Amino acid sequence: MPKPLVLHDDRLFPADPGTRGIARRLYAEVRDLPIISPHGHTDPSWFSRNEPFPNPTELLLAPDHYLFRMLYSQGIALEDLGVAALAGPSQADPRAAWRLFAANQHLFRGTPSSGWLAWVFSKVFGLDVRLDADTADLYYDTIDAALRTPEFRPRALFERYNIEVIATTESPLDSLAHHEAIRDSDWSGRVVSAYRPDPVVDPEHEQFPQALARFAELTGEDTHSWSGYLAAHRRRRADFAAVGTTSSDHGHPTARTADLSPAEAERLFARVVAGGASAEDAELFRAQMLTEMARMSLDDGFVLQIHPGAFRNHNPGLFARFGRDKGADIPTATEYVRALQPLLGRFGNEPGLTIIVFTLDETSYARELAPLAGHYPALKLGPAWWFHDSPEGLMRFREQTTETAGFYNTVGFNDDTRAFLSIPARHDTARRIDCAWLARLVAEHRLDEDAAAEVAVDLAYTLPKRAYRL
Amino acid sequence: MPKPLVLHDDRLFPADPGTRGIARRLYAEVRDLPIISPHGHTDPSWFSRNEPFPNPTELLLAPDHYLFRMLYSQGIALEDLGVAALAGPSQADPRAAWRLFAANQHLFRGTPSSGWLAWVFSKVFGLDVRLDADTADLYYDTIDAALRTPEFRPRALFERYNIEVIATTESPLDSLAHHEAIRDSDWSGRVVSAYRPDPVVDPEHEQFPQALARFAELTGEDTHSWSGYLAAHRRRRADFAAVGTTSSDHGHPTARTADLSPAEAERLFARVVAGGASAEDAELFRAQMLTEMARMSLDDGFVLQIHPGAFRNHNPGLFARFGRDKGADIPTATEYVRALQPLLGRFGNEPGLTIIVFTLDETSYARELAPLAGHYPALKLGPAWWFHDSPEGLMRFREQTTETAGFYNTVGFNDDTRAFLSIPARHDTARRIDCAWLARLVAEHRLDEDAAAEVAVDLAYTLPKRAYRL
Amino acid sequence: MPKPLVLHDDRLFPADPGTRGIARRLYAEVRDLPIISPHGHTDPSWFSRNEPFPNPTELLLAPDHYLFRMLYSQGIALEDLGVAALAGPSQADPRAAWRLFAANQHLFRGTPSSGWLAWVFSKVFGLDVRLDADTADLYYDTIDAALRTPEFRPRALFERYNIEVIATTESPLDSLAHHEAIRDSDWSGRVVSAYRPDPVVDPEHEQFPQALARFAELTGEDTHSWSGYLAAHRRRRADFAAVGTTSSDHGHPTARTADLSPAEAERLFARVVAGGASAEDAELFRAQMLTEMARMSLDDGFVLQIHPGAFRNHNPGLFARFGRDKGADIPTATEYVRALQPLLGRFGNEPGLTIIVFTLDETSYARELAPLAGHYPALKLGPAWWFHDSPEGLMRFREQTTETAGFYNTVGFNDDTRAFLSIPARHDTARRIDCAWLARLVAEHRLDEDAAAEVAVDLAYTLPKRAYRL
Repeated sequence: MPKPLVLHDDRLFPADPGTRGIARRLYAEVRDLPIISPHGHTDPSWFSRNEPFPNPTELLLAPDHYLFRMLYSQGIALEDLGVAALAGPSQADPRAAWRLFAANQHLFRGTPSSGWLAWVFSKVFGLDVRLDADTADLYYDTIDAALRTPEFRPRALFERYNIEVIATTESPLDSLAHHEAIRDSDWSGRVVSAYRPDPVVDPEHEQFPQALARFAELTGEDTHSWSGYLAAHRRRRADFAAVGTTSSDHGHPTARTADLSPAEAERLFARVVAGGASAEDAELFRAQMLTEMARMSLDDGFVLQIHPGAFRNHNPGLFARFGRDKGADIPTATEYVRALQPLLGRFGNEPGLTIIVFTLDETSYARELAPLAGHYPALKLGPAWWFHDSPEGLMRFREQTTETAGFYNTVGFNDDTRAFLSIPARHDTARRIDCAWLARLVAEHRLDEDAAAEVAVDLAYTLPKRAYRL
Repeated sequence: MPKPLVLHDDRLFPADPGTRGIARRLYAEVRDLPIISPHGHTDPSWFSRNEPFPNPTELLLAPDHYLFRMLYSQGIALEDLGVAALAGPSQADPRAAWRLFAANQHLFRGTPSSGWLAWVFSKVFGLDVRLDADTADLYYDTIDAALRTPEFRPRALFERYNIEVIATTESPLDSLAHHEAIRDSDWSGRVVSAYRPDPVVDPEHEQFPQALARFAELTGEDTHSWSGYLAAHRRRRADFAAVGTTSSDHGHPTARTADLSPAEAERLFARVVAGGASAEDAELFRAQMLTEMARMSLDDGFVLQIHPGAFRNHNPGLFARFGRDKGADIPTATEYVRALQPLLGRFGNEPGLTIIVFTLDETSYARELAPLAGHYPALKLGPAWWFHDSPEGLMRFREQTTETAGFYNTVGFNDDTRAFLSIPARHDTARRIDCAWLARLVAEHRLDEDAAAEVAVDLAYTLPKRAYRL
Repeated sequence: MPKPLVLHDDRLFPADPGTRGIARRLYAEVRDLPIISPHGHTDPSWFSRNEPFPNPTELLLAPDHYLFRMLYSQGIALEDLGVAALAGPSQADPRAAWRLFAANQHLFRGTPSSGWLAWVFSKVFGLDVRLDADTADLYYDTIDAALRTPEFRPRALFERYNIEVIATTESPLDSLAHHEAIRDSDWSGRVVSAYRPDPVVDPEHEQFPQALARFAELTGEDTHSWSGYLAAHRRRRADFAAVGTTSSDHGHPTARTADLSPAEAERLFARVVAGGASAEDAELFRAQMLTEMARMSLDDGFVLQIHPGAFRNHNPGLFARFGRDKGADIPTATEYVRALQPLLGRFGNEPGLTIIVFTLDETSYARELAPLAGHYPALKLGPAWWFHDSPEGLMRFREQTTETAGFYNTVGFNDDTRAFLSIPARHDTARRIDCAWLARLVAEHRLDEDAAAEVAVDLAYTLPKRAYRL
């Protein structure tokens, strides 16, 4: 007897009936607003080619590190889940992988993945029983059949999902061909890129020398001189702007910034391109490049996003076999006050600049980030990120930032995901939690309900659109 | 159509009706208790001169860094808000500044400032519509008119506010003339000082050499010798005691303490007064001075307050134009266990000594401060402070300290403010949140209601009076 | 008129009636499950000798550092509470000590001790009035009389408490005589040991040289050579296994691990046994020993527990008079990501290994530990520990770990106590809080109630039994 899959209308709302009633009313104001997805990792080729997605395992399981990391943590081999190794694609039968996933759904109890998946299963595929060992094949067949229909192609889902604009993320070495194809197509969906220069900014990346060479080819600049290297960035930022880009994004080990003199920066760059830069030089170079990017933002208006604090590739055995992004990136304590001071001291008072800072270290919300964003005109707080864009994590973000930074120094929600099918579920989670938080403020007579309704709309729609200049 | 300003009787109480009912009953026990304000930054000249406060902008907006930092963070110039620059007073028209403040009230949604202001507007000035662009002039005129009446002079408000005692904070270089005038007047209000020697203790303060010279003049001691310097402190502490002082206060970058031998301390002091002390010597000197102050407390009974952990003047551009205390002080991660060990190892078991420690780093509540205060007889926990004396911050303090330190190793509430008009609102917020926390303990059958009522009174009145020896 | 002592059936459940109803139903599933106590500090001689416990003070007050540290923090001398000094046993009259404790019960308001004690007083001794100055003698006489009856001997309580298995903790220098006696007796109670080698692993322990010598005597190995030292560990682990041991336990200042080559490890050990190892060598040796213990676990199947992060003996004056474990151990900020990388990089993917890590630094839950446990097959999260195994602490553990690690990378509850009488109260607290958390997930439609009921049973019984291989 399969168990019913129920997606309750009141999910994620506070249990207290009075507060829940307020949350319902606030949520009614934002439930149907278009999705602004200002930062994420979907693949632009989906939207340029508009080809069918493959089978359930390749669509939903194998690319989703939230899912396979949890299964791996309980001793299930990645090979058995359809995850490609460096040596080649998984040999696992997709249906067998799906059954393994289905039989271990208990591992996801209480996790955000269970909520996102329930939404996808119920709302997108119309399933009304829970996924488990007994229903694995029913699920596989239902989803597989749906994916072969036109209604489940990427552009159709994009429209069904009411996405007003979505940003992907590309390196300066990307040709942007898919973005150009989308732009030049007759499809009206708005898909923009974000400029993520980490491969040409991080001297510790194993491909850094090749990346610099390719950067030169693509731009015609001498990327081994400091002035040519900066010019190459400016050229590529202009190329990105031409496909709608309004932001850059920077994933660094720390939040460190620097404000070196031009001569110091040039000497540092010379050491970096000579190869064998010390760890301190590599860190200092990344730090200085954030300030350089901010300087370019003063000209081209790109919003500067900083995503610091992940210890990447913590598991060397897994990295050797499977490479990056396999669930072995772990947050670390991250300091912002001293780290951001050079950048903010230089450009923090610029009215035309927007710097959006994220954190994997929740202790910085109330202690460092809200006080900084509640002072500097250029600084805004990115939403709860990665390990923290969950119901509890989203609520902690509001509980710990609102009193010092208010709502208007935050920028709404980022799904930041490659899991395209769950994007509405993620935004819906954020909208529900924001309404739950606002409802608590109203119920405790800390905010009037009419004001709360305005804030709810601003968080869901107005603020991300404004902050990212979309 | 202006929106109603409603100050609900149940504000800040939990939404659950049963818990709210308990909170109401507990709050009824403490609502009308006199205010003990054992630590703050009001100006003693208000009470000695008893002159009318100036206009609404100069009274409520320009001096309140909670308010103007939020407005500044959204691109509003401090000059336009009536904030004085180093070069001279603001040229802004006070009414125009007030209108700018009024039109941006949405920025304060969900912040403690909105609650404090609502109390002042409603309870003190009798306003019953919300402040916004349309009501800006009504507000300005109403408040301005009230301030010209006798009922709104400082002493009248002090009495109306039912303040039993208030402590201001002065440097050893202060003449204490205002305190002497109050003491010698026929007014019965109790206004005491606190001894805050940072200017003569911090070698990194830009005025340190001049401060030492002035310290010598005031005391007749040789403040450039270690023994004379200590004697000068003793003299001034005696002067402060004569105007009712019962505490010293120390705002240091870190919580570091030291317990040097007399010879080591003397050599350190010699390096410090010679000028050009290293950062480490400056830090060590501040650290040693906490222990010296504790030693003096054994004699004169002053309570020792430590307020560590702010990165001061983070925004150099703003500092150059506007100076200190302009909303650019940012909390930092603060370590207490190793930092306080020299002081506590030396004096922590003294039954006659009270050290009250504060933090801007909430991670230390459960991890470091509650365990330390739950062990050392001399150590008590100061309440949630500065960025954290908000509804959420006050609640986190109780949630994270009570289980290890209990209630009786805490000292009630400090408003710690220069915003005199909102002092009752701040104490009321603290009383309501403490009652909300106690009500939850009662509702969850973790505490009997009769015991909770005793605790509520102790937190609101008995503990601060006892801890500060008032 | 004494006040009634009421142990409410709904204690620790959320106040919202709907959520409370769910919590009640979930709790009904786990209330009567046997106790699995996989890690703690009870004395095996209690169960081998089965002698009566002494008077109330010696049983309940003098050994319980949660109680006497709170009293000490308010200026009550340990001597007066029956706590033995190094110089000899307390001279305090047990009844006088008990009266002092009784008269200060207000200090425990809101602390977990008050809940544990209320359970012991009510459920074990049948008392129905609250402990205070007036009832001190009633309590003393009632408890004292009960302790003289057979029903209150250790084995009788063990059975009445429905303990399926309990683990004590012994050093490799322990003879295990009590465990052997229990094993060889006709009593069926299951009491096992845990292998805690800190005295022979920590070069900074004051008894380290003597411990190594004794370790050699007990094992017949040359404990001053690296290979002999490791062989001695293997021998003693086998001895422990023979009395049912399934785990080792390691209490280190930090979580640091190392993965040295055999030659490096041998050279390090040589420096350590030569005496006067540097602090860095001592730290590195402890770090390497965690990896060596994990290597042995691959052979003998012991679960490896790491309990890091306490600053021991913070109060030197108290330490000099009373020695260790007197409430002066204070948690410190503890880093796990870099610290555990050598161990996890080496053995983290081993399917047969279980490493259980604990923390005194709650900031690591969501930031470091849940992400690590949600990835590495060998790593599991130990429950909230020591200062944090309280209602708020247990709830924070679930709120901050569940979303990333799920429930199945945690291992249920450890009481970790020497306070035998309160063991069921501690497990009951954990069960109630887990049910409260699950009830909230159900009430917010984040988890189905049938799944929540399965999880409740797994947390209370299945997971600790499985994780500890009991």
